[in-house]
Amino acid sequence: MADFNAQPLERLINNFQKLPGVGRKGATRMAYQVLSMDKAEAEEFANAIMAVHSQIHRCPVCQNFTEKEVCRICDSASRDKSVICIVESPRDITTFEKTREYKGTYHVLHGLISPLDGIGVDQLTVKELLARLSDDTVKEVIMATNPTVEGEATAMYLSRLIKPMDIKVTRLAYGLPVGSSLEFADEVTLFRALKGRTEI
Amino acid sequence: MADFNAQPLERLINNFQKLPGVGRKGATRMAYQVLSMDKAEAEEFANAIMAVHSQIHRCPVCQNFTEKEVCRICDSASRDKSVICIVESPRDITTFEKTREYKGTYHVLHGLISPLDGIGVDQLTVKELLARLSDDTVKEVIMATNPTVEGEATAMYLSRLIKPMDIKVTRLAYGLPVGSSLEFADEVTLFRALKGRTEI
Repeated sequence: MADFNAQPLERLINNFQKLPGVGRKGATRMAYQVLSMDKAEAEEFANAIMAVHSQIHRCPVCQNFTEKEVCRICDSASRDKSVICIVESPRDITTFEKTREYKGTYHVLHGLISPLDGIGVDQLTVKELLARLSDDTVKEVIMATNPTVEGEATAMYLSRLIKPMDIKVTRLAYGLPVGSSLEFADEVTLFRALKGRTEI
Repeated sequence: MADFNAQPLERLINNFQKLPGVGRKGATRMAYQVLSMDKAEAEEFANAIMAVHSQIHRCPVCQNFTEKEVCRICDSASRDKSVICIVESPRDITTFEKTREYKGTYHVLHGLISPLDGIGVDQLTVKELLARLSDDTVKEVIMATNPTVEGEATAMYLSRLIKPMDIKVTRLAYGLPVGSSLEFADEVTLFRALKGRTEI
């Protein structure tokens, strides 16, 4: 409504407001920060925005974003090609990689089945996943979708598709987060933690 | 440290991290958001960043940012040129304008005197301010710097410069913020509110 800023500033503020978690005040601070950058710095920023669009595409194997022909993980000889971890988004791969424990490959669905949002199997990369499973390389598929309604439904749907292909399908364990307190655990999590208890 | 994202994404994340209040996680979300924009939207964003640099400069009168030759406020016939409100930054003007009560003009210092940060009078727009006061147009100067140590010191310094020119120098009132509670007022604010009490 109130537009007391110079028009180019107002335009940049509107652009920053499109970003997740950025409101009018934050966007204004960001726009002023850009204004206070020197020209080379602002140019680098603008070019970086264009570069993600011109240089990044999906890896033809795992559908993760990459600037290479095939992504680093699919291209690596040291990764176990017999295990595929199925995730919702490329960001989840970053989270897994940080653990430095997982040595298999990934498959990015780019979404979850969500009829309410009009997202069905066709919008996800299920076809590409099934193509990867068609030869005998893959022995195990790990469902690593989020523990939400949509994540569960998608994992369930995919496991029904994949199990008949004689491939082991597993799901991430449910339980108490490390470092948390019993006091704050919800009943469903606690029930799952009890059910999934292991011998020590 | 851990770099599991495609390189162009990583580059954009680094650029977003330079913005105020944006950490690694927020920058990552923003970069993915840009990736999910269509190309025209990303281009508009990149161009908006360049535009603030190429199109915005300081108004030669009040030193506010503007894309016009002289800013809208200084150029407006309906603004009272005999009153100048001195503020630290262009953002403060937006705050004042939102009240829709002030009809005078502004002068942006672009900083406050702060010897610890190596900011002296020469880095501020004091010379330009004194030039504006040299003819007899201006009757009152309102000090609207922040109620901080630096803001106070700067207001004090400027008032000593301006008073001998036979111009009225005023300072924004201190007191309780509207809608606040006495309970949460600090002693200094309460003391100032008491000292500045007015008849009703």
